[in-house]
Amino acid sequence: MIKNILCLSLFVVFGFIVHGQLLESPNGKLKLNFKIEEENPYYALQYKGKTILKDSKLGFVLKPATSYFSGFKIENIQYSFANNTWTTVWGPNKQVADHYNEMLVHLIQNKTGWKLDVRFRLFDDGLGFRYEFPIQHELRHFTINNEMTSFNLGKDYKAFWIPADYDTNEFPVTTSRLTEISKQIDEVRKEPLAAKAPSATLAVQTPLMLKSQDGIYINIHEAALVNFPAMTLNLDEKNLILSSNLTPDKNGDRGFIQTGSVSPWRTVIISDDARDILASNLIVNLNEPSKIKDPSWIKPVKYIGVWWEYFTGGGSTWTYSDQQDIRIGETDYKTLQPNGRHGANTKHVKEYIDFAAANGFDAVLVEGWNEGWEDNQAYRKEHIYSFTKAYPDFDVKELQAYAKSKNVKIIMHHETTSSAVEYERQLKDAFKFMKDNGYDAVKTGYVGPIIPRSEYHDGQWMVNHYRYVTETAAQYQVMVNSHEAVRPTGLHRTYPNWIAQESARGTEFESFNGNKPDHTTILPFTRLIGGPMDYTPGIFEGDLSVYGNNKAKLSTTLTKQLALYITMYSPLQMAADLIENYKKYPDAFQFIKDVAVDWDSSYILEAEPGDYVTIARKAKNKNEWFVGGITDENPREATVDLSFLAKGQKFEAVIYKDGKNASWNHHPKDYEILHQQIKSNEKLKIKVAPGGGFAISIKPVK
Amino acid sequence: MIKNILCLSLFVVFGFIVHGQLLESPNGKLKLNFKIEEENPYYALQYKGKTILKDSKLGFVLKPATSYFSGFKIENIQYSFANNTWTTVWGPNKQVADHYNEMLVHLIQNKTGWKLDVRFRLFDDGLGFRYEFPIQHELRHFTINNEMTSFNLGKDYKAFWIPADYDTNEFPVTTSRLTEISKQIDEVRKEPLAAKAPSATLAVQTPLMLKSQDGIYINIHEAALVNFPAMTLNLDEKNLILSSNLTPDKNGDRGFIQTGSVSPWRTVIISDDARDILASNLIVNLNEPSKIKDPSWIKPVKYIGVWWEYFTGGGSTWTYSDQQDIRIGETDYKTLQPNGRHGANTKHVKEYIDFAAANGFDAVLVEGWNEGWEDNQAYRKEHIYSFTKAYPDFDVKELQAYAKSKNVKIIMHHETTSSAVEYERQLKDAFKFMKDNGYDAVKTGYVGPIIPRSEYHDGQWMVNHYRYVTETAAQYQVMVNSHEAVRPTGLHRTYPNWIAQESARGTEFESFNGNKPDHTTILPFTRLIGGPMDYTPGIFEGDLSVYGNNKAKLSTTLTKQLALYITMYSPLQMAADLIENYKKYPDAFQFIKDVAVDWDSSYILEAEPGDYVTIARKAKNKNEWFVGGITDENPREATVDLSFLAKGQKFEAVIYKDGKNASWNHHPKDYEILHQQIKSNEKLKIKVAPGGGFAISIKPVK
Repeated sequence: MIKNILCLSLFVVFGFIVHGQLLESPNGKLKLNFKIEEENPYYALQYKGKTILKDSKLGFVLKPATSYFSGFKIENIQYSFANNTWTTVWGPNKQVADHYNEMLVHLIQNKTGWKLDVRFRLFDDGLGFRYEFPIQHELRHFTINNEMTSFNLGKDYKAFWIPADYDTNEFPVTTSRLTEISKQIDEVRKEPLAAKAPSATLAVQTPLMLKSQDGIYINIHEAALVNFPAMTLNLDEKNLILSSNLTPDKNGDRGFIQTGSVSPWRTVIISDDARDILASNLIVNLNEPSKIKDPSWIKPVKYIGVWWEYFTGGGSTWTYSDQQDIRIGETDYKTLQPNGRHGANTKHVKEYIDFAAANGFDAVLVEGWNEGWEDNQAYRKEHIYSFTKAYPDFDVKELQAYAKSKNVKIIMHHETTSSAVEYERQLKDAFKFMKDNGYDAVKTGYVGPIIPRSEYHDGQWMVNHYRYVTETAAQYQVMVNSHEAVRPTGLHRTYPNWIAQESARGTEFESFNGNKPDHTTILPFTRLIGGPMDYTPGIFEGDLSVYGNNKAKLSTTLTKQLALYITMYSPLQMAADLIENYKKYPDAFQFIKDVAVDWDSSYILEAEPGDYVTIARKAKNKNEWFVGGITDENPREATVDLSFLAKGQKFEAVIYKDGKNASWNHHPKDYEILHQQIKSNEKLKIKVAPGGGFAISIKPVK
Repeated sequence: MIKNILCLSLFVVFGFIVHGQLLESPNGKLKLNFKIEEENPYYALQYKGKTILKDSKLGFVLKPATSYFSGFKIENIQYSFANNTWTTVWGPNKQVADHYNEMLVHLIQNKTGWKLDVRFRLFDDGLGFRYEFPIQHELRHFTINNEMTSFNLGKDYKAFWIPADYDTNEFPVTTSRLTEISKQIDEVRKEPLAAKAPSATLAVQTPLMLKSQDGIYINIHEAALVNFPAMTLNLDEKNLILSSNLTPDKNGDRGFIQTGSVSPWRTVIISDDARDILASNLIVNLNEPSKIKDPSWIKPVKYIGVWWEYFTGGGSTWTYSDQQDIRIGETDYKTLQPNGRHGANTKHVKEYIDFAAANGFDAVLVEGWNEGWEDNQAYRKEHIYSFTKAYPDFDVKELQAYAKSKNVKIIMHHETTSSAVEYERQLKDAFKFMKDNGYDAVKTGYVGPIIPRSEYHDGQWMVNHYRYVTETAAQYQVMVNSHEAVRPTGLHRTYPNWIAQESARGTEFESFNGNKPDHTTILPFTRLIGGPMDYTPGIFEGDLSVYGNNKAKLSTTLTKQLALYITMYSPLQMAADLIENYKKYPDAFQFIKDVAVDWDSSYILEAEPGDYVTIARKAKNKNEWFVGGITDENPREATVDLSFLAKGQKFEAVIYKDGKNASWNHHPKDYEILHQQIKSNEKLKIKVAPGGGFAISIKPVK
């Protein structure tokens, strides 16, 4: 197969060589130009004849201050292409087409003889390029001082941005022009978060979503972040140039590199139709195929959990005792006075297992099951938790037997409080404990600043840590759902047991009024570009004052919560609300019970970042379809073009939509459920309330 | 037992209370005074009526800048004493007397209500005191900004010092007045070492040896360094006050403390006879008893090794191949071209096993047995070595079978190149590999700067790392000999499997002319105060030019090398030279074959730091005695008072002494061996050459 591509590429090479260092996308709409000017390498990008990126820099500055970006000449250029289709382990689509033209530029630095390769891949929907550091005699190890890569926009785009921060991706998203960021960023950075390490520069996180005045959508991110720090983007607001700002360690080093390795791909997804951004497979295509040879143990999961009750203000808590002086391995929990508010107790978890079994959920997440929560002091304490010792009132064996008898899994929880080395110390024992007790999935957490104390969440060391955890988990056939880790870059293709991540502002922020109605209309264009998010939707009781002193109110209507199961793609989906609330609204809950978590195909029907998203998906290996549509704070009429259904057949749709009086801030629980026969040549028009949404389940008429 | 002590102490309490906050040593020669003046706590110390320490500060500054040293009042004081004897697992003495009076001062800070306890123990030979941070409601976690503890000498002592450095203890020792340190320290700090992190302040390492003009010897160090950074000593050269300078991490934090814990003991050993400093057991007495309940697997070891040949310049090397682009887990060593100079090959190791077996050695150390040496890039690379995968020419199974058949152990080597987290990742697998293959001891190494990159060798994190390694080793019944770790503080009492450390300038520095003739007359007063040192003596061929281009010459005579087996106490002693050299001098080698490595009793016969040391020791459970005496660059006549022998009996002595023409720089191999009958009422007079030494083995006449 590889040989065939190379043979064919010879012809293509010839075709390209007459144009110089030019590369076109397969459909010809994207054109990349690479050049050396005054010994500096540049790339530029056109889309449908419009300049998207003007001449943009490439290369690095090495420590202490050595140029690895200038003084280059081209040694040689190789062209190739690929046009393949691969099968996902799970995903929004069963099959993914991988179709690109490639240009590999071999550079050599005149003075030093150092080599640097740049590999460009042009897809129909965008560009990926990465640096390759060949094995060479003159250069074996180096430390990155700075990456020079720039994205020379030269225009003032509308941006959906969060501030660059090396320790968190949990800021609310701000929508503004690029030139307005500098005025707003300081205020945004005041947001209280568990760990913050703001970039000293004017910079924003990726995935960064941009829209030009003439309707071009651009998404800048990276793919296959392996053994490298995460990239944020410096903004030169005068010249409107974005440039790579790698996450440093606390000593200011931005990556320790051994030649014979590659950088992550820098990605630019481009279209004049916002739906193409959501439909793009560019990021996963730039990741390596699965390293897990037999992935049959990896299964998408719909789950409930002992979790939201910790946020409602109802009094339930992670801790077993109110005594705070705790030393893991020394403190004998059996001698402690229980506080009577501990959520993860055997009886209560059994209630969740019962409900999961009765309603077809795969699993129950239990947080607060293990010793140490009373003294969870981030950064100041290294040995906070035991990952193999349960609280006295959480009977591991009894619960596992009970769960097994009901065909339900319990999801393990490993909150590390960012004590990452200690987690690595316990890691194998922790996974062994899981396997011995029937667990097959773990939610990891990284709240607070990191130990090792030289590191940030998004630096090279932690990037390696998350992968080490995931790889080790795979050895034990454990699926990983990481929270507060670096945002994803498509590595779930390579490690499909990395089944979801949080790495953004999730539903938990609703418990203190933290999310705005447009939040979930933006996330699919930003955070989700890198991979699935464990957003934990499904909150029916949006008024938290019913539980006690918490006055927070949800930013969505009830049916928008249903829509999120479709619009916020994840193979791991939680029904996050309390059991009692699902029991109050059994008709709406039916959608959560029905909705699939793995898919044959996905159809992006409507999309505009910050405004609305409507998506349809076909359940994997089933003749069932589910549609979700959401809007921001503005009401709208959604159009659901049903042409994704088989022609000529009749289908039965159940439509969950906002009621007449519904809006996110008034009567959010006003909803209606319609049953309707539909056909593929129809278009449904559905009114969506302010902050609202709708969900549809579709089956063939029997 | 404890109860008895407490009952008796009531009487003592009464006796002391009349003097206020005064504590006396059991023999009354040391007097400690504790007081609060203007709400600040102070201690002061007298020896035989002379003031040794004037009013000296106590306490801490907490982060960010909070006083935990002032505003105190005494809440309560408790007095007690102990007079016990305990048995060592190994040591210079089988029995150790632990006899002290104690004062425990409970302080409370007026404004904050924070509590701080100071526990003073006064022995006949010195003072130990530590801070205790009681569990309290107001204070649970804190970060140390600075320790205020001072040692207010108020006089200009002669000091035997190395510069304070957070990453190394390998500087040569300088002898000067305290007031001369500032003029010399910058020059001394230029010494090239693999990792250096000099204190920004004028400061020196502990153990610091001092001598006053009126002949008082003082040694300042610490005992039981656990979960705390190592202490160095700032020097206020104007007021002649030393004060604690804790090793920070790279963020400037000097210890993360949870209350309910204690600091290490700050120790001051005092005498007007230098021999008492060497004989002191104060440091071990201040450490906790052994945590290893059955220590029967821990055995002192005399060993040879594939080691010195790497330093001689003879061409032998740790690496298997000359290819440097190595990736552990990816590089297939079987495909590499061997360089033909690899020391740790099966055939060569067998030669060492044969020689060990023929000459009664317990073990053979083999360095360079495992994958990774070709690319041992400290700090820049994290995964340097495999600790479970041998080079292709080192046959683990075959060598273990061979060694076992000869009743010899192979000592494992784990050079970490200071990649400490990676070592922890592999630790349990590495120890399991050792047990599976018959190894029972490991030499660990920490060359170069540390990963985690926030840490120094002597900071709290690494202090915890070394202990974690030692504790984990104990679980696998593995003895540890750590090199380049933090200098010892008597923890070998608590973890007797921590059988030796390097943590100073050892014999390897002789291979580049790095040690002066007085070096080993100082180390017993400095480095060895904390615990045994794997100094690796026994170099007979001191002229390295015989091997090739190395022009280094040893700083000792041949018989001084023999004396070091006695003067440099260690239960782990190497005969470091090449086999061929021992074969050339079989008569001198006989002493190395004979000398014991564990002892019933030790007798410090003569001692003056920087000038000479003469020590006799009785072999454990044997009627054999061994004497070693060394001098600095000056010749002298040693006096060996034989009164340590049983009275009335006749003994046969073999005396290994410098020949008439011997000196360290001319004819170092000129030696003579005398056989002589001796009795306990005699004194041997032995001429010692410049840079020379002598050794004596003694047995009863049959």
